[in-house]
Amino acid sequence: MHALWKILAKKSGRDSVSAGEIVTADIDLAEVNDLYLQVIKSFYEMGKEGKKVWDPDKVTFIFDHYSPTPTIKAADNHKKMREFCNEQNIDKLFDINKGVCHQVMPEAGIVYPGMLLVATDSHTTTHGAFGAFGTGVGATDLSTILLEGKLWFKVPEVIKINIIGKLKPGIMAKDVILKILGELGQDAAVYKAVEFTGPVVENLQMAERMVLCNMAVEMGAKTSYIKPDSTTREYIDQRVNHDYTVYETDSDFEYDEVYEFDVSDLERVTAAPHDIDNVINVRDAGDVKVDQVFIGTCTGGRVNDIKTAAKILKGKKIANGVRLIVIPASDEVMREAMKKGYIDTLMESGATISAPGCGPCLGAHQGVITAGEVCVSTSSRNFLGRMGSTEAEVYSASPATAAYSALYGKVVGGEE
Amino acid sequence: MHALWKILAKKSGRDSVSAGEIVTADIDLAEVNDLYLQVIKSFYEMGKEGKKVWDPDKVTFIFDHYSPTPTIKAADNHKKMREFCNEQNIDKLFDINKGVCHQVMPEAGIVYPGMLLVATDSHTTTHGAFGAFGTGVGATDLSTILLEGKLWFKVPEVIKINIIGKLKPGIMAKDVILKILGELGQDAAVYKAVEFTGPVVENLQMAERMVLCNMAVEMGAKTSYIKPDSTTREYIDQRVNHDYTVYETDSDFEYDEVYEFDVSDLERVTAAPHDIDNVINVRDAGDVKVDQVFIGTCTGGRVNDIKTAAKILKGKKIANGVRLIVIPASDEVMREAMKKGYIDTLMESGATISAPGCGPCLGAHQGVITAGEVCVSTSSRNFLGRMGSTEAEVYSASPATAAYSALYGKVVGGEE
Repeated sequence: MHALWKILAKKSGRDSVSAGEIVTADIDLAEVNDLYLQVIKSFYEMGKEGKKVWDPDKVTFIFDHYSPTPTIKAADNHKKMREFCNEQNIDKLFDINKGVCHQVMPEAGIVYPGMLLVATDSHTTTHGAFGAFGTGVGATDLSTILLEGKLWFKVPEVIKINIIGKLKPGIMAKDVILKILGELGQDAAVYKAVEFTGPVVENLQMAERMVLCNMAVEMGAKTSYIKPDSTTREYIDQRVNHDYTVYETDSDFEYDEVYEFDVSDLERVTAAPHDIDNVINVRDAGDVKVDQVFIGTCTGGRVNDIKTAAKILKGKKIANGVRLIVIPASDEVMREAMKKGYIDTLMESGATISAPGCGPCLGAHQGVITAGEVCVSTSSRNFLGRMGSTEAEVYSASPATAAYSALYGKVVGGEE
Repeated sequence: MHALWKILAKKSGRDSVSAGEIVTADIDLAEVNDLYLQVIKSFYEMGKEGKKVWDPDKVTFIFDHYSPTPTIKAADNHKKMREFCNEQNIDKLFDINKGVCHQVMPEAGIVYPGMLLVATDSHTTTHGAFGAFGTGVGATDLSTILLEGKLWFKVPEVIKINIIGKLKPGIMAKDVILKILGELGQDAAVYKAVEFTGPVVENLQMAERMVLCNMAVEMGAKTSYIKPDSTTREYIDQRVNHDYTVYETDSDFEYDEVYEFDVSDLERVTAAPHDIDNVINVRDAGDVKVDQVFIGTCTGGRVNDIKTAAKILKGKKIANGVRLIVIPASDEVMREAMKKGYIDTLMESGATISAPGCGPCLGAHQGVITAGEVCVSTSSRNFLGRMGSTEAEVYSASPATAAYSALYGKVVGGEE
């Protein structure tokens, strides 16, 4: 069995499972974010007696998509969620001061290898970087989980993506996963699990591994996985106060597909509008004037990302007419980036630093774009209308490419 | 004549003016903020040939109320304003990375004694702190100014408010002006000028003087004034690269009214919902649970304000269930507050730091509140619906009171 299957087997009380089987598994952590008040509404509508969540210690609420609140409606949703947590004795409420769920949960030490984690957010595949089975679920599914602590899963086939070679300096995980997405396409892993292996992956820090697993969902993956190693343990052991099991994939496990990517020649790439698999080398982008650059989110707002941008922009000013919005993925990231001087460097170059959270990634606030504008963004999605107007364009790229694009006011991936 | 009258006389080419006269005066600086795209629309509708602004060096655009953009509409307004500045050769465009106009303009060195300054913002009275004649104007007025460089003014009567005694430690300008507002009422100075004098004023730093002049408009004042002194010159001379004149009020000038306030016994006060002159001692507020605290804006987002809050919250955590939003008034303020460690201290206590600008002051984004919520805010207005829902309540108070309220989760003004 694959390690991910062993997680499902364990959580469903089975000795073994196989691809395509339906199992009902116990959930270790259920996360609700502030997009989905529907979870609470459905929870009450289901009418179970007493209406208590199955285990308040295994539930977390995180306010990230609409923090700080841009509308009365958002504030009202937050209020109702706070009241729900209070009533249900849920103490893992991460309020508006924390940041993006996929950064906040690992930092809080509630993500660990071998766990089964669901959230009302498609990028929950991120947590495969810690050897967890993480997946996004709908609001109603999450409601039933709050009541029962269980969910059914079809055991997914597993695709292995082996990444070999050696990355050139400055090439980031974002480039790697975009390259893979460009090659395989956005339907390559629908309801399959994607495992990343190989020497390139082994050399990536956790922040970068999280980017790979995060964007596996952009090829349709149910979940994603990187085998825990010493890098994983170093992160986990500093934060997690919880027993955990690292499951091993059996040596005879048969992958549904195996792909190999040699990334030694990989250069900076970008997903051009309006599809995440519309990937080109940045140097081939043509002369595209940029109006806004956004460095942040669960795929570009970590310390290493901000450091990368700060090194590129140190002592320089962003181009006239361009705005650069930098939103740290969490309060911890922001404090560390301040301590290291990166925030000051970026502000000196002309950046706008805003409150940790999802920011303008989903076009909700903090940098919505209008018709005719072009944004280079480190976020994971660039579909039509994602960041505001359907007549705007989003280029998804690495923090390095984003920083250079801010510096020159056009889509570029290096010194001009 | 009063110094403010001498400014109007000079700018209208007269030897003297008297109260109630209508003069047409040359504008030294016209500021448009991002609330008023209407300025540009009216400018074009007026159909003057060539459609050029009278003097691009005397015009400034500042994006503060909707920065970073919370909606497509706001982004579109910004875009059109950038295009206008570009077309009209207006180089004093302060984009989304700068902050609140009334902090950004003085920092940029474009506010100085003896000038006549108008803006599409009622709190333009702030700049009386520098010995300028500053006042808010409507969008259409601003459009005519862009064309002609002039506006008519009725010469205002002047009210003198003499502030004597010695402030107790921790009592801030915000307390002083609220106390005055509470005593005199919000109609006390309709279309009059308000001058602040006396030893208390002389001992205030510029940031605190700006709070007094800012909130003069809350009693209806057309403009406000503090006689420039060595404190003013120290600020101005570091920043202003421009000749300026300090006009002296004639010794025989007859004020319309003279009030004297001895503030020696003043304690922390707050404007309770829903009027800015509904002022009570904080200790008499009763047991009011607080949901949100906002430290920021043109009356509470400067370095001294953030320092005050940081000192109170250092090593402590804000109350459970309260969110504390801190928004520096400008990028310069934020960088200074970071350098001094105040931002880190506040984040450690649980604060959310967001991008310099007006923030939730006007209920547009970054901390909008919903029905049933109570916010303690350092901003200048607390009328029904100001920060979001008309079923929410806003207490306007000093940064110190705000910090204590965040610490204890209720409206309080000191250690509990």
